[in-house]
Amino acid sequence: MTPVTGVIRYPRSVPRSGAEARRRLRQAALELYRERGFDQTTAAEIAARAGVNERTFFRHFPDKREVLFDGEAELRAALLRAVVDAPAGLEPFEVLLRAFRESARGLEANRPFSEPRWEVVAATPALRERELAKHAWLTDAVADGLRQRGVDDGVAGLAARTGWAAYQHAVQVWIVDPSRSLDAHLLDAFDGLRALTSAAPPTRAGPAS
Amino acid sequence: MTPVTGVIRYPRSVPRSGAEARRRLRQAALELYRERGFDQTTAAEIAARAGVNERTFFRHFPDKREVLFDGEAELRAALLRAVVDAPAGLEPFEVLLRAFRESARGLEANRPFSEPRWEVVAATPALRERELAKHAWLTDAVADGLRQRGVDDGVAGLAARTGWAAYQHAVQVWIVDPSRSLDAHLLDAFDGLRALTSAAPPTRAGPAS
Repeated sequence: MTPVTGVIRYPRSVPRSGAEARRRLRQAALELYRERGFDQTTAAEIAARAGVNERTFFRHFPDKREVLFDGEAELRAALLRAVVDAPAGLEPFEVLLRAFRESARGLEANRPFSEPRWEVVAATPALRERELAKHAWLTDAVADGLRQRGVDDGVAGLAARTGWAAYQHAVQVWIVDPSRSLDAHLLDAFDGLRALTSAAPPTRAGPAS
Repeated sequence: MTPVTGVIRYPRSVPRSGAEARRRLRQAALELYRERGFDQTTAAEIAARAGVNERTFFRHFPDKREVLFDGEAELRAALLRAVVDAPAGLEPFEVLLRAFRESARGLEANRPFSEPRWEVVAATPALRERELAKHAWLTDAVADGLRQRGVDDGVAGLAARTGWAAYQHAVQVWIVDPSRSLDAHLLDAFDGLRALTSAAPPTRAGPAS
């Protein structure tokens, strides 16, 4: 528990800007989740380690989970923009691959910070669930972007879901095998998906169930 | 709140078997979540409506969310078996399509019960997150099944993720458009995925990022 200290005198290093407070809260949360586990950590403890008060925590994040998903709104906006702004005339999977390659550059640059975060998320069901929900939300943005390009509604949904699945497969492989770039793994995943679909016969020729 | 009634005398219709208690708890939970919302419903209230006590609820389900995901372990086992037991010599996507078609028959038969459940899950973030976690767990089972058939580790993961994504796309389309069978939507999704991959050029020929 956080000790009761009466009126708190912040150290001089207390963050003034919102962005700096968010960064410190993210870092403090990640450290505490790794040291004690997510369930054993309170928002007050995260705030204390970050040198802010609990109200500041809740001004920036609605709950203990969201603190590890900061920046998702910007990521969503960037993905959507990359899909919408891709050159005209590209096929849906070409558009998605371009957008994912651009997004992947951010992941590659952030790997040193992201690596401990992945470990915590993978080990904590409550965080893993939140992550999957965020991915569904990002997938919806990608589908919306394709629709804004004039792609048929159903095709956009199918392309977004399956393309996203291939992207996430690439990320998982790259987490385990960083000897090759995420970009290389991503190209492999899209080529692998092409190989999988072309190896199977068209469904209507398959045996009726 | 549940009224305090001292020693409870159950009506004669009180369920004797575990399976019947589970069925009644599922039904009661679904009704209450629709009437009041998930957040406003307690396990005790679900138990009361089902004619059992709260301890019985927690003997069957660890929390308020799991009560809407009963039968997932059986579904996982059935999917895994369908993948492992598919005839030798089939390509990974042929194996998956067979397994998903079989699984889809269960969904089609259960639509009258499932439809109100989908509405509640879609409208409740906590349930939607749990559902996505279950899907990730089912996807892992499918990948394991492919590996047991001798499919390369990476290919198995990619096929399971992208095939599952196509399956879930089909389910979503079918929920909105039940005028065609889920089976027809599922075949469309696999054919649509083939069309998407073959329309885009191989990635290595694409522009470098």
